[in-house]
Amino acid sequence: MDILKNKILEEGRVLDGNILKVDSFLNHQLDVNLLNEIGREFKRIFAKDEITRILTAEVSGIAIAAITAQYFNVPVVFAKKTESKNLDEETFEGNVYSYTKGKQYKIRVSKRYMSKDDKVLIIDDFLVNGQALLGLKEIVDEAQATLVGAGVVIEKGFQKGGELARDNKINVKSLVTIDSLF
Amino acid sequence: MDILKNKILEEGRVLDGNILKVDSFLNHQLDVNLLNEIGREFKRIFAKDEITRILTAEVSGIAIAAITAQYFNVPVVFAKKTESKNLDEETFEGNVYSYTKGKQYKIRVSKRYMSKDDKVLIIDDFLVNGQALLGLKEIVDEAQATLVGAGVVIEKGFQKGGELARDNKINVKSLVTIDSLF
Repeated sequence: MDILKNKILEEGRVLDGNILKVDSFLNHQLDVNLLNEIGREFKRIFAKDEITRILTAEVSGIAIAAITAQYFNVPVVFAKKTESKNLDEETFEGNVYSYTKGKQYKIRVSKRYMSKDDKVLIIDDFLVNGQALLGLKEIVDEAQATLVGAGVVIEKGFQKGGELARDNKINVKSLVTIDSLF
Repeated sequence: MDILKNKILEEGRVLDGNILKVDSFLNHQLDVNLLNEIGREFKRIFAKDEITRILTAEVSGIAIAAITAQYFNVPVVFAKKTESKNLDEETFEGNVYSYTKGKQYKIRVSKRYMSKDDKVLIIDDFLVNGQALLGLKEIVDEAQATLVGAGVVIEKGFQKGGELARDNKINVKSLVTIDSLF
């Protein structure tokens, strides 16, 4: 996806040797035209899979998932990180280990919004260590739904997440894979 | 907005006498077709205001803001609730008092993504006590940008947020105002 590659090369910034900041278009400021190109590309990739639902995790997957869902004409559900009084008590849960925080947390989807009849496409902004994807897969598995695949905007190919996700039989399609930040 | 009113009447659920749950279409599962109707309506309302940027706060404003931004053809920026290594050090800050948690927290926008030349439209899902709107207004004011108005999907007219926001000279336009949950 050249438009995305060029955007990363033009506007991405590398911090501390290992962090790629793309907050000018993907996860703080949002370039909505670019998100539409991304959504169109995910639709092209997963066009034949009869997707019924798009799943993502808050926060930074939400905008990408919502724009992408327009091309599939299906609802989005985003997994929540915190228990709140606005979330149903009956939820499907996934576990996500955060290397940044050094601890595990849960993500949840109300049982109302996923069922065994669903064909689910996961959408996320980054694939780094793969923990978010595995947590989302747990939710799909608990719902006994079918996980069709995962559409990722940027995969850091030099970290272990892609391998881990594919070892866990997630059909990962990344629009851009970065092999090195140097 | 009849389509929105009907959706609230059909799918909204009232919990504990005071909480309106609209998580089947607005803030957990997302009905993307409805979000497009909402975006179109905000565009109709603010069509003449030469908006250059849409501002919202994470989490539940993001999808609405992203879909709405398509109709204005402008970037979105969403204020972040947590300090993270992915956020610039130089930020505009707003203060939000959470009645639920009984404490104040900060929301932040990188100084890269708002300037005095911006005409800003705030978008949010709910207007209840008005604290989020005031915090977002602080960010716009600190950036010396122009706050054109605030587009809110659902205003709880029986709580004080609408009055507080309008007393603070925010041009609030709510698509649906709920006078009572009973």
